[in-house]
Amino acid sequence: MTISPFDHPVLGGLLSDEEVAAAFTAKAELDALLAFEIALAQAEAETGVIPAEAGAGIAQALATVSPDIAALRQGVAQDGVVIPQFVTQLRAAVGDKFAPHVHFGATSQDVVDTGLALRLGPVLHLLDTRLSAVIETLAALEARDGEIETMAHTRMQAAIPVPASRKIASWREPLVRHRERLGDVRDEVCVLSFGGAAGTLEKLGDSAQAVRDALARLLSLRAVSRPRHSERDGIVALASWLSLVSGSLGKMGQDVALLAQSEVGEVKLASGGGSSAMPHKVNPVGAETLVTLARFNATLVSGMHQSLVHENERSGAAWTLEWLLLPQMVMATGSALRTAQTLLQSLSFQRR
Amino acid sequence: MTISPFDHPVLGGLLSDEEVAAAFTAKAELDALLAFEIALAQAEAETGVIPAEAGAGIAQALATVSPDIAALRQGVAQDGVVIPQFVTQLRAAVGDKFAPHVHFGATSQDVVDTGLALRLGPVLHLLDTRLSAVIETLAALEARDGEIETMAHTRMQAAIPVPASRKIASWREPLVRHRERLGDVRDEVCVLSFGGAAGTLEKLGDSAQAVRDALARLLSLRAVSRPRHSERDGIVALASWLSLVSGSLGKMGQDVALLAQSEVGEVKLASGGGSSAMPHKVNPVGAETLVTLARFNATLVSGMHQSLVHENERSGAAWTLEWLLLPQMVMATGSALRTAQTLLQSLSFQRR
Amino acid sequence: MTISPFDHPVLGGLLSDEEVAAAFTAKAELDALLAFEIALAQAEAETGVIPAEAGAGIAQALATVSPDIAALRQGVAQDGVVIPQFVTQLRAAVGDKFAPHVHFGATSQDVVDTGLALRLGPVLHLLDTRLSAVIETLAALEARDGEIETMAHTRMQAAIPVPASRKIASWREPLVRHRERLGDVRDEVCVLSFGGAAGTLEKLGDSAQAVRDALARLLSLRAVSRPRHSERDGIVALASWLSLVSGSLGKMGQDVALLAQSEVGEVKLASGGGSSAMPHKVNPVGAETLVTLARFNATLVSGMHQSLVHENERSGAAWTLEWLLLPQMVMATGSALRTAQTLLQSLSFQRR
Amino acid sequence: MTISPFDHPVLGGLLSDEEVAAAFTAKAELDALLAFEIALAQAEAETGVIPAEAGAGIAQALATVSPDIAALRQGVAQDGVVIPQFVTQLRAAVGDKFAPHVHFGATSQDVVDTGLALRLGPVLHLLDTRLSAVIETLAALEARDGEIETMAHTRMQAAIPVPASRKIASWREPLVRHRERLGDVRDEVCVLSFGGAAGTLEKLGDSAQAVRDALARLLSLRAVSRPRHSERDGIVALASWLSLVSGSLGKMGQDVALLAQSEVGEVKLASGGGSSAMPHKVNPVGAETLVTLARFNATLVSGMHQSLVHENERSGAAWTLEWLLLPQMVMATGSALRTAQTLLQSLSFQRR
Repeated sequence: MTISPFDHPVLGGLLSDEEVAAAFTAKAELDALLAFEIALAQAEAETGVIPAEAGAGIAQALATVSPDIAALRQGVAQDGVVIPQFVTQLRAAVGDKFAPHVHFGATSQDVVDTGLALRLGPVLHLLDTRLSAVIETLAALEARDGEIETMAHTRMQAAIPVPASRKIASWREPLVRHRERLGDVRDEVCVLSFGGAAGTLEKLGDSAQAVRDALARLLSLRAVSRPRHSERDGIVALASWLSLVSGSLGKMGQDVALLAQSEVGEVKLASGGGSSAMPHKVNPVGAETLVTLARFNATLVSGMHQSLVHENERSGAAWTLEWLLLPQMVMATGSALRTAQTLLQSLSFQRR
Repeated sequence: MTISPFDHPVLGGLLSDEEVAAAFTAKAELDALLAFEIALAQAEAETGVIPAEAGAGIAQALATVSPDIAALRQGVAQDGVVIPQFVTQLRAAVGDKFAPHVHFGATSQDVVDTGLALRLGPVLHLLDTRLSAVIETLAALEARDGEIETMAHTRMQAAIPVPASRKIASWREPLVRHRERLGDVRDEVCVLSFGGAAGTLEKLGDSAQAVRDALARLLSLRAVSRPRHSERDGIVALASWLSLVSGSLGKMGQDVALLAQSEVGEVKLASGGGSSAMPHKVNPVGAETLVTLARFNATLVSGMHQSLVHENERSGAAWTLEWLLLPQMVMATGSALRTAQTLLQSLSFQRR
Repeated sequence: MTISPFDHPVLGGLLSDEEVAAAFTAKAELDALLAFEIALAQAEAETGVIPAEAGAGIAQALATVSPDIAALRQGVAQDGVVIPQFVTQLRAAVGDKFAPHVHFGATSQDVVDTGLALRLGPVLHLLDTRLSAVIETLAALEARDGEIETMAHTRMQAAIPVPASRKIASWREPLVRHRERLGDVRDEVCVLSFGGAAGTLEKLGDSAQAVRDALARLLSLRAVSRPRHSERDGIVALASWLSLVSGSLGKMGQDVALLAQSEVGEVKLASGGGSSAMPHKVNPVGAETLVTLARFNATLVSGMHQSLVHENERSGAAWTLEWLLLPQMVMATGSALRTAQTLLQSLSFQRR
Repeated sequence: MTISPFDHPVLGGLLSDEEVAAAFTAKAELDALLAFEIALAQAEAETGVIPAEAGAGIAQALATVSPDIAALRQGVAQDGVVIPQFVTQLRAAVGDKFAPHVHFGATSQDVVDTGLALRLGPVLHLLDTRLSAVIETLAALEARDGEIETMAHTRMQAAIPVPASRKIASWREPLVRHRERLGDVRDEVCVLSFGGAAGTLEKLGDSAQAVRDALARLLSLRAVSRPRHSERDGIVALASWLSLVSGSLGKMGQDVALLAQSEVGEVKLASGGGSSAMPHKVNPVGAETLVTLARFNATLVSGMHQSLVHENERSGAAWTLEWLLLPQMVMATGSALRTAQTLLQSLSFQRR
C-alpha cells in the first residue's frame, strides 16, 4: 500500500530516504520489541526475579523467533497495540516451561516506547551526521563563492548588495544551533520506558529498581526514576526539533528557489527537474522539496503537541496519534537533509 | 517501507482500510495516469488534432504497457513529478511513428491532477456509501436502545437524564449533513484538469475546447473553462470535508469512551482490546481510534489549507505538500467510517 | 490589552478591520445575548409559557439594562461562561416579579451560540459584499490590463508568455466559487441554538416546539429540530470557508509579491511600504499581508477542526477553544478582503 | 476591540492574565522600541560613531517623548512595520540638530525584534517563577494527599489502584523538565538583533562590532556575531517550549476533569463553575480551561514553525505571522500556569 509518499515505490524517489526508512520497517520495529523482551528476561534472571535458566532459555528462543505478521495485524486491530498478541507468540515460542517468565511485570507501552527509543538513538545519530555534512558543504560553498556579490532582498524587493557569504551563513548557523540543541533532546528520548501496568512496576516488588537498572544497562538506555507513559514531553520536544531542522532547511530551499529564478539568476543549479511540456526548463526541484518538507513538518508538529494531552496513565487516543505522526516527521527531516546536501552540491553562485 | 501506519503490515490492521487503499496503490495511480493519456490521444484523434490511426495506435499500445517503476522512481527524484519520465516510457511503448502524438498539448499537472480526480470519484462514492451505512446502524441502535435512560453530561459533570436517542441523534445528524455537503464538494473535485504548460492549451490552437470536451466526456469528468492548476480550493474543500467527517466520528468515539468507562458503564462493548498486563480489561479501542483519526485529520487539514498559497501557474512546493497529506486524509476518514461501523455494531446502551 | 494585533492600537492599522471588529466588541456580544433573552421572553409570552405581562415587562426592562462588565468578568472566570452571572444581572434588572421568567428553559450555550449566530449573519453578508467587490475590481483589472503579456511561471521558473488575463482569472474564479459555497455554509451557521440544559428543552414540556419556532421567527434565524450544542460541524464548516477565502487571497498576494520583485517588474504598485533604512524601496506590504493572513487562517483552522471532538452534551474544553479561534479567523478574512481590494486598486501590469 | 478573548473585557476574566498582558500593551512595546533607540544612540556616542552630545541629546529627548499612536497606526498600515513612522516621530522629537543621528545604521527589524527580546526576558522569568510555584503546590498536594488510593486508568478503563502520588508526579515532573529546558531557550531569545538594512551593519564600517557590543551591554542582551533577521529558530524554539508547558498542564487538566466526574469522584474541587440551567452542578472550569489552552497552543505552534520559511533577508509575510501568534502563545501559557495554580489549590483527592 502506498498512502504515504514516503512508502511509495515511485514518489519515494523524491521524498523518501532509505537510511531513515530502515529504522521504521516492520522488521526493525519487531526486532526492537524483541530486544526489549530478551533484555527484560535477562535483567530479571540477573536480579533473581525469574530463574536464571528462564532468562537464558528465553533469550535463546527469541533470538530465532519469526513473528506471525498476519496474526500481529489481527491482534493490533483488536487490542489497539501489538503487544498482547506479540507476547502470546513469544510465549508460544519459548514453550510452556518458560512462558510465564516472558514479559513479566511489563506492559505494552514499556515495550513499544522502548522499542522506539532503541531505534531513535541511531536515527538521531544519523541525522546529526547529516547535519554536520550539510554544515561542511555550506562552509565549502562559502569558501568557494562567499565573496561573490549577491543582492540582499527584504520584503521581496532588492535592498543592497551583500556578499554571498552572508546568505550562506544564514543557512548554516541555524543548523549549527540545531546540532547544539540535539543533545538535550536526545537525552529525553533515549530513555527506558519501564513501568508495568500502571507505572508502578507492582509485580516486581522490591526488585523493581534493580531490574530497571539492569534492563537500562543491557539496552544502553537511560534509566529514569518513573516511567513517562503519560508524560510525552520528551517525544514532543523531539518532534519540535525535527521541525526546527526541516524549517531551517525550508528557508534555505525557498531562498535558492528565489535566487534561481529565471529573472534573477544569482544561483545556478547544475541539475534540475525537467518538464513534460517545456523541454527548456530546469526546475529547482530540490529547493522546492525543501519548502514542502518544512511545511509538512510544521503541519504535523501540531498533532504531536496535541498529543501532550495524554489522559490518565495511558491514552490510546493520544498515543496512537504519535504513531501516525512521528515516523513521518523523522523521515521528512532525514529526507530534507539528504535533499539539501544534493542541492548544495549542485549549486553555484553566479558572478553578476 | 512502513513510515505510515496506513501502509504498515502490522499497524495497518488497526488503522488501514483495504478498499480505500486500493485507490492509492502505485498501480491504481499509474492506471489512472494511463487512462488520461489514452483518452487524450483518443480525444485528439476524434477532433483531428492527431491522425486517427495515432489515436487508435496509442490506445492499443498503452493498454498493455507495463511501466518501469524503478525508472519512474528515478525520474520523479529528478523532475519532482513522475510525468516526464512516464511520458518518455509511453513514447517508447508506442513506437517512433506515434510517439510525437503522445501527451500532445498536455502538461504534467493535467495528468496527475486528473489521475487523482479519476480515483477520487469512486472513493468518495465509497465514503458516501459507508456514511449511509453508519447512519442506518445508528438508526437501528436508536430503534433498539433509544428509550434507555442515560445521563447527559455537560462540562464533564452529570447534568440531567435524557433518553439515549438524544445522544445517538447527536452522532447521526452531523453525518446526514456531511452527506448533504458531499455533492458540491465532489463536483469541484471530479473535474478534468487540462491546460497544458501554463494553462492556455496553446499547442491546441482552435481545437483546444473541442479536445477538452471530448476528453472530459471520455473520462466522465466535468470540463471546466479554465484549468485550476494553481486554484486548489476544490481539493482543499475536500480536505475540509474529510476532516469534518472524521471529526464528527471522533466526537462519537469520545462519547463512547466516556460512556464505557468502568465507573460509568452506560454503554457496553461486546468486544474490545485486551491488555498484556491486565487480562481483565476490555479496552474501547475502536472508540479511541476514532478520536485519534479525528485529531489526525484536524492536524493535516492545516497543511492542505497552507497549500492554497500556490504561487504562479504551478508551485512544486505547494503541490507536493498535497501529495504528502491528502491520501492520508482520505484513508483516515475511510478508516474512521469502517471503525465506527464496527464499534456501533458491538455497542449497546445499558439499562440503569 | 493588546495581545492580538487585531485588537492592537498600532498594529491594528495593518491587520484589523473596523467593520468586522464591530461585530465582536463586548457591546456587540452583550447586545446579541440580550436580544436572545428578550426574544425568548417574548416567545414564551406569545405561547403562554410565561404570563404575557412578564414578556412585556422583561422586554421593556432589558431594553435599557446596562451590564456590569466587571461582575461579568468575575462570573466568567468562575463559571467558564458569562451567562450565569449575566442572567443574575438580568433578573435583578427586571425585578422580583418577573425575574423567574427570565431565561426560562434555556441554557448558557443557547444564548452564547445564538448570540454568535446573530452577529455572524451580518458579518457574512459583509464578507460576501466584499468578495463581490474584489471580484469586480479584478474584472476591471482584466478589462484594463488583461491583454498585457506576462510570463507564466511554473516551479519558480519562466515558462511561456501568457496574457495577464490568465493570471487575473486564477485570482478571480476561486473567489466566485467561494461566494457560491457561502450560501450553504451560512445556512448551517445562522440557526437558532435552543435546547435547554441537556438539549431536550425539558422545562418547556409540550410547548417546546412552539417556543422554539416563535423564538426563531423573532430572531430571524432558522429553527432546527434539535439543538446542535455538541454538533459543531456548521461552525467548523464556516471556519474552513473563511480559510478557503483567505487562502485564495494569499495565493494572489504571493503572485503579486513575485510579479513585483525588482528583477521581474511585471506588476507595479502605486503605493507601498517604506523602509527605515532604505528610503528607495517600495515594499509590497499588502501582498505580503495577504500571505500572512492566509497562513494565519490555515493555522487556526486546525484548532477549529480539533473542536469537533466536543464530548457529551457540552464540552467546556472544546467550546472555549472555538472562542479563542473563530473571531480571529473572521477578522483575518475580513482584513484580507479589505487588503486585497486596496492592493488591486494600486496595481497595474507593466507592458514588457 | 475584542477579537481575542485575551483582550476581551469579559472573557479576559477566564483566559487572560494581567502580568503577562503588561508585557504586551502598546505602551510596553513602544517603551521597548524607545529603549533600543536610546541605547543605540548612547552606544554610538560611546564609540564615536555619532557625536557625544548627540548621544546625550537623543537620550534626553526620547526619555519624555509621547508617541502619536494614530500616526503610528497609519504608518504601519502603509509600511507593514511601525518603525519608519516611529523613527520619523523620534527625529522630530529630538530636533533637526540631532535627527540624523537617530536610528543610525539600524533597520526596522533590529528595533522590533530587540524590543520583543527586551520584553520576553522578564516574561520568561515570570513564567519560570510560576512554574516553580506550581511545582511546589504539587509537592504540597503530594505531601498531603499522596498516599490516598486512586484508580489508575489506561485506555479510559480502570486498571489497578495506585497511590495519588503517582498521578501527581506525572503532573509535576514534566514541569520540572520544562524549567530545565528554559535556560537554553531563553539564551536564544534574549539576544540583541542588530544588523542594519541587510544584516551587514554596512553603515557602521569598522565600528560595527564595537557599537553592537556596547548596545548589547546597555540593553543587557547577548550580542551575537550576526543578526538573525531571517533565522527564526530561537523564536520558534520558544514557541515550542510554550506549547510544551501548556500541553503538560493540559494533560493535568484533562486528568482532573476525569477524576472529578460525578461518577468517579476521586477528586473534589472546592470551587467550580455554576450553570445557568442546573444550579446543582459544580463544573471543573479550571481543568477544562487547561485543556483548551493546551490545544490552543498546539494549534498556534504550527504557524510559528511555518514561519521558519522566512525568505531572503527579511520576509514581511513570515515575520508578520509571528506577531499574530507568539504573544498569544505567551499569554496562553501564562494563563495556563495561573489557572493551574488556582485549580490545584482548590483540589483534594478523596479517600475511597
